[in-house]
Amino acid sequence: MNNLLIGQSGGPTSVINASVVGSILEARLHNEIDRIYGAHYGLDGIINEDLILIDDKMNVEEWMYTPGAILGSVRFKIDEYPNDLALYERILTIFKKYDIRYFIYIGGNDSMDTSRKISDYFKKINFDCKVIGLPKTIDNDLVETHFCPGYPSAAKFVAVAIEEIYHDLIVYKEGRVTIVEIMGRDAGWLTAAAKIPSINGVNVDLIYLPEKPFNMDDFLNKVKSIYDKKKMVLVCVSEGIVDDKKEYILKHREFKPEDDFGHLQLGGVSLVLAEKVKKYLNLPVRAIELNLLQRCSMHLASKTDLKIAKKSGMYGVRMMLKGKSDFIVSINFKNNHFSFKMVPLIKVATLVNRFPLEWIKGDSDINDDYLNYILPLIKGEIKLKYQNNLPHFTRIIEK
Amino acid sequence: MNNLLIGQSGGPTSVINASVVGSILEARLHNEIDRIYGAHYGLDGIINEDLILIDDKMNVEEWMYTPGAILGSVRFKIDEYPNDLALYERILTIFKKYDIRYFIYIGGNDSMDTSRKISDYFKKINFDCKVIGLPKTIDNDLVETHFCPGYPSAAKFVAVAIEEIYHDLIVYKEGRVTIVEIMGRDAGWLTAAAKIPSINGVNVDLIYLPEKPFNMDDFLNKVKSIYDKKKMVLVCVSEGIVDDKKEYILKHREFKPEDDFGHLQLGGVSLVLAEKVKKYLNLPVRAIELNLLQRCSMHLASKTDLKIAKKSGMYGVRMMLKGKSDFIVSINFKNNHFSFKMVPLIKVATLVNRFPLEWIKGDSDINDDYLNYILPLIKGEIKLKYQNNLPHFTRIIEK
Repeated sequence: MNNLLIGQSGGPTSVINASVVGSILEARLHNEIDRIYGAHYGLDGIINEDLILIDDKMNVEEWMYTPGAILGSVRFKIDEYPNDLALYERILTIFKKYDIRYFIYIGGNDSMDTSRKISDYFKKINFDCKVIGLPKTIDNDLVETHFCPGYPSAAKFVAVAIEEIYHDLIVYKEGRVTIVEIMGRDAGWLTAAAKIPSINGVNVDLIYLPEKPFNMDDFLNKVKSIYDKKKMVLVCVSEGIVDDKKEYILKHREFKPEDDFGHLQLGGVSLVLAEKVKKYLNLPVRAIELNLLQRCSMHLASKTDLKIAKKSGMYGVRMMLKGKSDFIVSINFKNNHFSFKMVPLIKVATLVNRFPLEWIKGDSDINDDYLNYILPLIKGEIKLKYQNNLPHFTRIIEK
Repeated sequence: MNNLLIGQSGGPTSVINASVVGSILEARLHNEIDRIYGAHYGLDGIINEDLILIDDKMNVEEWMYTPGAILGSVRFKIDEYPNDLALYERILTIFKKYDIRYFIYIGGNDSMDTSRKISDYFKKINFDCKVIGLPKTIDNDLVETHFCPGYPSAAKFVAVAIEEIYHDLIVYKEGRVTIVEIMGRDAGWLTAAAKIPSINGVNVDLIYLPEKPFNMDDFLNKVKSIYDKKKMVLVCVSEGIVDDKKEYILKHREFKPEDDFGHLQLGGVSLVLAEKVKKYLNLPVRAIELNLLQRCSMHLASKTDLKIAKKSGMYGVRMMLKGKSDFIVSINFKNNHFSFKMVPLIKVATLVNRFPLEWIKGDSDINDDYLNYILPLIKGEIKLKYQNNLPHFTRIIEK
């Protein structure tokens, strides 16, 4: 038997299930693959022998239109071989027991590093199993690919949210300073999406990415001068902005909580800025975190993103069946046309593709190069199936 | 000349513009009304003689599909006559100058109180002007009406957001305690919407409304026991929950900020609960505020809500033309059919319609009576016009 195993890893997105679906649909077309398994909770499911048999009766097409990670996900790092030897051997045992000859791992740069380590190990011990990675992250921070599936849908959500929030904010003659916090720890790609509504005439006043040092005094001066003019200010800021010493602005808080809980670790920089605006400018202010909705708003997914995610899985399976291994499926875009190529995992693993500095205008705006980049990626709306007047989603994990 | 003046007041919703549009379209049909004006920023626009002439060339149908408040809004309270006499006289001057004989004010209970005061004043001084209110609030807390336009769309947003967030949360074997904070200061209607996804099998573990006292120890015990079983907990909580002394739970924080800024005043109770979960249970926890998106997510508006908002304006105009005044347009629902009636403003002004205690199951769940109530209200999706792959909105205020 020659079986395929698929695992999902890292934070969910709206289209990570489309990558799974594409892989399955393609695999079903080829006799070289006998059975398809899903790793329940990624690497954790492999180590704990918790695999899901995905047989032909499963209506996997439905998974396309469900956010999250249909097989379950995990944040799990494995050390470089021969460290963590027992783990490597455990993985091998399970792969042998289930005749896994093809392994697809879907995730971001850490997951690509995991795939690379497993692939290296298999080569070292001469175990014949093709290992590939499929790109996925709302952060869009993988190198060597035009974009990462998951990002365009998150960007589209951010753009629509900003457009709608803007129409809420302009209703008062004397408005507020509104600070919207957007995900993206090290790379500003998702925050840059706040620029997209400008194509419909909705302009954010200040956009701050982690790629340029954030200066608090300068920020406060700008806020004051904009508020004086317009009686409202709309600021969009990445959760990961840093000062000129590369320290997170999040640490510049006015009050220090006793406890160290999730929300106040990362996430929360909008509160820090709101504190400063209140304390130093005494203006009415509101902090908004867009939070998880950025990565799970399936109903606003980009049709292009969904389609490319699916096709990346199909391409990956076809290449594995041609004997290729040890690569990530990378996306090209040329002459308005998407295509795929193989890039060695080692060239991608752990690296971070930051937002291009030359696309940042001054220190708080984004230029047209970004708009030219993003617009083809957010093309098209999807039509969800509704059930009881709510989107119909599907799942195999019940909690 | 006999002219109509329309004003919007209080927090925006996704369908408050539909109420304006219905009023305008109906008014255009009747020769008794010569001109239609909009008050720019509500009462503020009247006092400052800032009126917008809405002529026949204006394509107001487009306003239907734009969130916010197309004419601008205001939070403005006027004192009981003869206090604030100068304000009353100023309003009269403007009404006389612009020949306003019909006045529609759209808002919540405070705005209905304003309408009632103005109407009383006009009667007292024998100024012939019909004055009516149209109901609007995402809080659904007006009395004497089956529902308030704006609420069903906000409820639909909450339901979809919870459905999508749920699918994000279940992906990890060891998940978090997630606390979602929902708007509604005094009434739990919007938080109750977290129950809606249960009709699609998506169950929130704990739902807390302001109508029942919140007990922190009991909350922590429940969270612990659910987490032990499922390794995740999803809690939805109204921003306005109170303890048994009717004090906001928001005040139970572990750390006190030096400054007193918007976010930490109301809004923020999810952070307080997250602190407690971290400190006393030491579980991984995340706080999510759904924030402004609850009232401006036009793209998820309920078609039923939008339609009824529009019709409420049409009904109001027809009744004024029959000589009626001093009423709010109230909505009936019987045998699956919506209709309208007039209710005197005095019976609605300043009163709060709280969520029925008998619809709360135990202290942290909602029963089927609520589902039977809400499901007809969230029926139907709207189709927005898209422009550059984003919803196309329109506005007359530019900032």
